[in-house]
Amino acid sequence: MRSMRILFTLAVLMGPLTVAGQGQKRTTPKAPVAKAESNKSEAKIRELYDRWAKAFRAHDIDDIMSVYEPGDAVVAYDIVPPLQYKGHDAYRKDYEEFLAQYDGPIEVEFRDLRIVAGDNVAFVHSLERISGTLKNRQRSDLWLRVTSGLRKAKGKWLIVHDHVSVPVNMETAKAALDLKP
Amino acid sequence: MRSMRILFTLAVLMGPLTVAGQGQKRTTPKAPVAKAESNKSEAKIRELYDRWAKAFRAHDIDDIMSVYEPGDAVVAYDIVPPLQYKGHDAYRKDYEEFLAQYDGPIEVEFRDLRIVAGDNVAFVHSLERISGTLKNRQRSDLWLRVTSGLRKAKGKWLIVHDHVSVPVNMETAKAALDLKP
Repeated sequence: MRSMRILFTLAVLMGPLTVAGQGQKRTTPKAPVAKAESNKSEAKIRELYDRWAKAFRAHDIDDIMSVYEPGDAVVAYDIVPPLQYKGHDAYRKDYEEFLAQYDGPIEVEFRDLRIVAGDNVAFVHSLERISGTLKNRQRSDLWLRVTSGLRKAKGKWLIVHDHVSVPVNMETAKAALDLKP
Repeated sequence: MRSMRILFTLAVLMGPLTVAGQGQKRTTPKAPVAKAESNKSEAKIRELYDRWAKAFRAHDIDDIMSVYEPGDAVVAYDIVPPLQYKGHDAYRKDYEEFLAQYDGPIEVEFRDLRIVAGDNVAFVHSLERISGTLKNRQRSDLWLRVTSGLRKAKGKWLIVHDHVSVPVNMETAKAALDLKP
């Protein structure tokens, strides 16, 4: 990862210099710099997601919640009711109830993950496989859809919105819990 | 709306001037300018959402799809299976099937809508009430959760990701279709 950072730094430094050397207008270097910055943000956000997955596997609620903005900013639409969870404390409680259903580590796998990052606002979406052994000894293996909205404040990316769901058959009102990508 | 735009423009113009007049450093005006730009983006994105709602009410599939980026960029997690719809054409077909269930106009209401907009990337989330009369004469009235991810290209905001869902009771695998905010 460190070598990747050096590459990004080089790209930031070299972008404007290279273009300036070609005698182009001062406005043109913006694009490569913006791209390099965006790549750096994407790497930071990917790190955040990986940190979340590690904490989730280990049922570490403090580390899980450390990827979310503190206070009232977080609004989450979770797989289970109600329609929304407002604020850090309410969402933490929701996480605790979810984790309490599992016995031992929970496996997490991302598929088709996409990060779209601007200067200070980003969103991420991914298919996400969650598997583990429930307290009732049953094996659970589930593909979810996950979307997050993030903001950067004081140089740090944090999640302010989560949306987690499974599709539903509208005729039977049954959740589709056995889908695979 | 035009008077609002003029206000935003004034804010952009006045922000740096005011600060410069106070003899502060050249780096400080960034924040008010960024804020005014962000407000302008929020207004533009709100317009996009309202345009979508108007088209949705009228079953106007071309106008609905005009708020999405063309080509393969769109990835949508819809209320119904499969897990994801990839690309403009697949999502259009999904919309057409949804609209075909309704007879006459579909009402749309947003609640707790939040727009978080940066320079070129934004996300929106909202509770959304969809109501109307189905082809089988039954009345349908449903609260959904909706999240969109947007990008600005060539000065124009367009949606590249949608996530639409209802919560699910995980013990019964039943969708919660009667929730109200």
